[in-house]
Amino acid sequence: MTQDLDHDNVAHGMTPEDTPELRALYQGFKDNHLNPLWTQTGDLMPMHPKPQAVPHVWRWADLLPLAEQSGKLVPVGRGGERRAIGLANPGLGGKAYVSPTLWAAIQYLGPRETAPEHRHAQNAFRFVVEGEGVWTVVDGDPVRMSRGDLLLTPGWRFHGHHNDRDAPMAWIDGLDIPFSQQMDVGFFEFGSDRVTDYATPNYSRGERLWCHPGLRPLSQLQDTVASPIGAYRWEHTDRALTEQLLLEDEGQPATVEQGHAAIRYVNPTTGDDVMPTIRCEFHRLRAGAQTPERREVGSTVFQVFDGQGAVVMSGVRHTLEKGDMFVIPSWVSWSLEAETQFDLFRFSDAPIMERLNFMRTMVDGG
Amino acid sequence: MTQDLDHDNVAHGMTPEDTPELRALYQGFKDNHLNPLWTQTGDLMPMHPKPQAVPHVWRWADLLPLAEQSGKLVPVGRGGERRAIGLANPGLGGKAYVSPTLWAAIQYLGPRETAPEHRHAQNAFRFVVEGEGVWTVVDGDPVRMSRGDLLLTPGWRFHGHHNDRDAPMAWIDGLDIPFSQQMDVGFFEFGSDRVTDYATPNYSRGERLWCHPGLRPLSQLQDTVASPIGAYRWEHTDRALTEQLLLEDEGQPATVEQGHAAIRYVNPTTGDDVMPTIRCEFHRLRAGAQTPERREVGSTVFQVFDGQGAVVMSGVRHTLEKGDMFVIPSWVSWSLEAETQFDLFRFSDAPIMERLNFMRTMVDGG
Amino acid sequence: MTQDLDHDNVAHGMTPEDTPELRALYQGFKDNHLNPLWTQTGDLMPMHPKPQAVPHVWRWADLLPLAEQSGKLVPVGRGGERRAIGLANPGLGGKAYVSPTLWAAIQYLGPRETAPEHRHAQNAFRFVVEGEGVWTVVDGDPVRMSRGDLLLTPGWRFHGHHNDRDAPMAWIDGLDIPFSQQMDVGFFEFGSDRVTDYATPNYSRGERLWCHPGLRPLSQLQDTVASPIGAYRWEHTDRALTEQLLLEDEGQPATVEQGHAAIRYVNPTTGDDVMPTIRCEFHRLRAGAQTPERREVGSTVFQVFDGQGAVVMSGVRHTLEKGDMFVIPSWVSWSLEAETQFDLFRFSDAPIMERLNFMRTMVDGG
Amino acid sequence: MTQDLDHDNVAHGMTPEDTPELRALYQGFKDNHLNPLWTQTGDLMPMHPKPQAVPHVWRWADLLPLAEQSGKLVPVGRGGERRAIGLANPGLGGKAYVSPTLWAAIQYLGPRETAPEHRHAQNAFRFVVEGEGVWTVVDGDPVRMSRGDLLLTPGWRFHGHHNDRDAPMAWIDGLDIPFSQQMDVGFFEFGSDRVTDYATPNYSRGERLWCHPGLRPLSQLQDTVASPIGAYRWEHTDRALTEQLLLEDEGQPATVEQGHAAIRYVNPTTGDDVMPTIRCEFHRLRAGAQTPERREVGSTVFQVFDGQGAVVMSGVRHTLEKGDMFVIPSWVSWSLEAETQFDLFRFSDAPIMERLNFMRTMVDGG
Repeated sequence: MTQDLDHDNVAHGMTPEDTPELRALYQGFKDNHLNPLWTQTGDLMPMHPKPQAVPHVWRWADLLPLAEQSGKLVPVGRGGERRAIGLANPGLGGKAYVSPTLWAAIQYLGPRETAPEHRHAQNAFRFVVEGEGVWTVVDGDPVRMSRGDLLLTPGWRFHGHHNDRDAPMAWIDGLDIPFSQQMDVGFFEFGSDRVTDYATPNYSRGERLWCHPGLRPLSQLQDTVASPIGAYRWEHTDRALTEQLLLEDEGQPATVEQGHAAIRYVNPTTGDDVMPTIRCEFHRLRAGAQTPERREVGSTVFQVFDGQGAVVMSGVRHTLEKGDMFVIPSWVSWSLEAETQFDLFRFSDAPIMERLNFMRTMVDGG
Repeated sequence: MTQDLDHDNVAHGMTPEDTPELRALYQGFKDNHLNPLWTQTGDLMPMHPKPQAVPHVWRWADLLPLAEQSGKLVPVGRGGERRAIGLANPGLGGKAYVSPTLWAAIQYLGPRETAPEHRHAQNAFRFVVEGEGVWTVVDGDPVRMSRGDLLLTPGWRFHGHHNDRDAPMAWIDGLDIPFSQQMDVGFFEFGSDRVTDYATPNYSRGERLWCHPGLRPLSQLQDTVASPIGAYRWEHTDRALTEQLLLEDEGQPATVEQGHAAIRYVNPTTGDDVMPTIRCEFHRLRAGAQTPERREVGSTVFQVFDGQGAVVMSGVRHTLEKGDMFVIPSWVSWSLEAETQFDLFRFSDAPIMERLNFMRTMVDGG
Repeated sequence: MTQDLDHDNVAHGMTPEDTPELRALYQGFKDNHLNPLWTQTGDLMPMHPKPQAVPHVWRWADLLPLAEQSGKLVPVGRGGERRAIGLANPGLGGKAYVSPTLWAAIQYLGPRETAPEHRHAQNAFRFVVEGEGVWTVVDGDPVRMSRGDLLLTPGWRFHGHHNDRDAPMAWIDGLDIPFSQQMDVGFFEFGSDRVTDYATPNYSRGERLWCHPGLRPLSQLQDTVASPIGAYRWEHTDRALTEQLLLEDEGQPATVEQGHAAIRYVNPTTGDDVMPTIRCEFHRLRAGAQTPERREVGSTVFQVFDGQGAVVMSGVRHTLEKGDMFVIPSWVSWSLEAETQFDLFRFSDAPIMERLNFMRTMVDGG
Repeated sequence: MTQDLDHDNVAHGMTPEDTPELRALYQGFKDNHLNPLWTQTGDLMPMHPKPQAVPHVWRWADLLPLAEQSGKLVPVGRGGERRAIGLANPGLGGKAYVSPTLWAAIQYLGPRETAPEHRHAQNAFRFVVEGEGVWTVVDGDPVRMSRGDLLLTPGWRFHGHHNDRDAPMAWIDGLDIPFSQQMDVGFFEFGSDRVTDYATPNYSRGERLWCHPGLRPLSQLQDTVASPIGAYRWEHTDRALTEQLLLEDEGQPATVEQGHAAIRYVNPTTGDDVMPTIRCEFHRLRAGAQTPERREVGSTVFQVFDGQGAVVMSGVRHTLEKGDMFVIPSWVSWSLEAETQFDLFRFSDAPIMERLNFMRTMVDGG
């Protein structure tokens, strides 16, 4: 019963008569940098999240040519730092915020180019939907970037990138820039104009220390706030998802839902999310599978890695192809449909919501 | 060395020539809801927090008369919900945000008035700088409000207030409304138009169960995300601070700094902050004491409870009297000076910063 | 079905024929410090805990005169360290172990006597069933001991006791000596032959810093493995229990079971047990109340603090008076019955069982 | 100064005169199941751990033939349950305890034999120093056992073993039986007389779900008290150690000490030990390497997996070969020396000591 009441359909019991005294009072508020709650309750305290950000799809077919053109026209270097083009949520007034918390961009590096080193409090990752040839150097550790890999740059680690090949490469970046900007938590420091190590090893030192399942180096017993793994390789992600679907075929519990395999990338020192503000996951749907309609607090971004399908957001269906990206703002309903086997990379601000106890989820028929 | 570089004094290596092709590219960005990083790096990723919010002082001598006048002109009731007047940080464009995360308001209830019940995801508290006679009813438990008391209303608990006396009463409210609003996490539900229990006990049931130092009811072994204590009474706060200063006199470690006693209000089930997003503390300085200059990530609000003194924010000194409130935005330098014994209530968003690993502190000479 | 099988009633499928070869094999085991599992499975791996320790009651009417006589005949001093008489479980072969994990003793200090300072890895507490006049000095902090108080001496803190009065005083000690001894974890160091501070304050420094409900000194933000509170006073315990029963009268959830109020003494920095190996609680039953039959992993010791009642252990009923102590070994069934209002202090090794995931509980009708 | 004092060299200030009254008092203690502390302080509360358990080496050359002979003479089956021969510490009176907390045994299964299913509260693992062909079936999941593998059976999971080959197989078992027995925490239940699944897959379902580095199945977000990984494969362990030594060669921090690589097997849901009471590790020393002398609280068992070397325990040197096992009781000094590359599996009760805050370590020159 009370649940059906909304700010819009309850009588407003605090509407004073418009008198000179009232106007004087309101002017007094203004003069003293005050603002009464009763004139704005519904906006400040909505019945459920009513984000300004809107659901939106960006097409890889649009993103990549613009990135390539940037590669031709805009040099990469100190000051601007990165040839990264941010997805600007149409509801957020042109700001390069894909959501109130998250930044998502396509980054592009031409043949033999270097993006200089810096570090910042903001947490970052890169995900590679296609291509290879770039190494990101994180606190001096060169990390190969190849298709399907997730590469981490947790807060306050120096990092730069260099392209070791004669072909350009593009990938996506995810950061908590909007959150950091709005919450005033950012710090930044310039590093070397070149990367500190131009070696191009197949595996980074972080991987060589940490990427052995269930094995922890005895020299690394201190838990870390972000994952010490710099690169989560496609070969492992693909195998994990493949096994989940095979186990499902064998009648074993392994998938999230029928036909829906998924992994979360985690910090091996704790089993928790890879970074304090950003969750990263990879989802695979069997051809024909469909997920139930969901609403969740917080915002999430997907990129299609492979296959064809669709997303329905707030009841609107968008077909999707490889590379396409979309954002689902807080409490917007969504579900996925797979036409072929359908692989999607996902990141979100869920750790923020969970650590501050704001997470809620509603699953249709759940 | 690299620390001295700022975005403003490094050569910007990403300034392309202004050509028709470039203009076409930038138009392409706009058409596709994109925004390049290189034109805005310094704004999005500052060298250190550069808040839009500014340090500001609100005078009790201004606040209280406006609240009283509101009491005369504006009824309290369903829809507007509360006769609360929010402090609007002058840097935040007139929004009723005292900082990007926090809401602070003076609330006023006339003789025999009732503010109706509701609940919301936002966390709230009240602190009483003067007066008595109101009971806040939290999930059915009537909680007396008296001078010096901190009263909690953690997220999603029904609550209303009623004034049992023939005199009005004013107090301050603190909430995480701006954070909730910007992060799209808010839920709201109307409750009873009257409070569910008009009893006026001296101690709430929560206090009677929980306010025995070091003793936990065996029926309450589950940890809770927010404190189960509804009221932190002045008698305990005052005694704790008095004892710290006496111990300091005896040469024992007890105070934060010489002449500076302080307590944090905590959740007895965990020893942590009272609520997931808001830290509450009380500080007492001996006459003549001065705190070292500090900078901290996150924003904080103080209200003078008693005595006279001053705050220096960003080098500007403001003298302070009982009831005065001031906000210190992220990374703004501040220190306190006590002319007399100087008592201050403090609240901040530090739990957000700590849980997400963004906290940093810089103490002068520290 | 399988639950009904016991080692005694399954056919033993590993009974080899007694041959010279078998005897040679068994001799080979012996010569090589080996021991086959199959000859002892039932003993090593029982169907449920089958403790050697037995339920037992010690009468205060027996304990106190023996302690007084010790006071006359045995001096207290360095080497023997304490005039403490340990309860020796009749099932444990005369060892001064009240259970495999716990030590319980009556300690006695004559007029003006001092027990010298020392420290040890073992965790200790004292509980006072009657009397006053002794101060225990813990890491230099003098702590008054009075009827109903629980006094802590967590591992590795120097402590000694002195009697400031012309009358003797007796109290009980609880430690994890048997656990420490069997697990080989003990360290010990002698301290001053006299206590380091003969002051006799009403409240210890630890209490003055920490015993303010829900308030944490800002100078003490580091969590501690054991409680920083040296004394849990009877006035608080009594009030907490009184309030629980009053709340029960008012129809509010507060007690463990109908007519059964109880508190756990906790570490205010975490809300957890006061020490890593020992749980301390206080229970109050209304006259006529009876607790359901329980079995728990781990051992527990009670001392009657006030009133009259009985305990039923393994079906045997023992009437109880003030000062009487009893031990309940692991998985022995027990329940309490109150003839008058019945107050009992309890301590146990439950933190060991819970931290190592061995705890199980079975409650009759639960 | 006080550190140099021992119970043996301080004057004992509590030696009363031997009188008839004293004898009567001591008889009174005995009659009432009491035992005075002052006659036994040094034994009950030693200056440092003085274990009854002694350092000891068991030779594989002795163990294996006795196991083989058991295979000929003793059938395996219900009642005795396992053809396991426990290492009996010479200091512990013939009990099959390798230390006060740990059980270590060689288990032997003949061609085509089955060890029936059961479950118990005790935590167990198996480690394979040579051979293959046995599958252990844990809660219905068949787990291959091969050289170098660590196989887990955490508490209360049904498990049985079967040999799928025509050759026998031996391995070692480790459990917390002595701890469970002395602390009275054991529960036991018989299961199927045959294993529930005779399939012989290369990889268990637990591995297929969990053994992807840094990837957590989205269907398995609940942390578990013991590791969900049933088998830690040699290929991963070997590669992790190899990489650590290569990184050391490259001048990178990776090893515990110069020439000493090591991993801890962990629970991927938390990054902590595999089971609540047992720590498992694998150590590799370069030829010629030597570890500093160490003392640690708690007991530990090693088995040589490969190579040749020695252990020095309490100053006594023992040369070691493949399969040899040795136990280091609490606070006994030890160091390892490698003649060739030297691989050792290790398990210990360190989680008990750490969770109860009793751990201490002393490293020579550390």
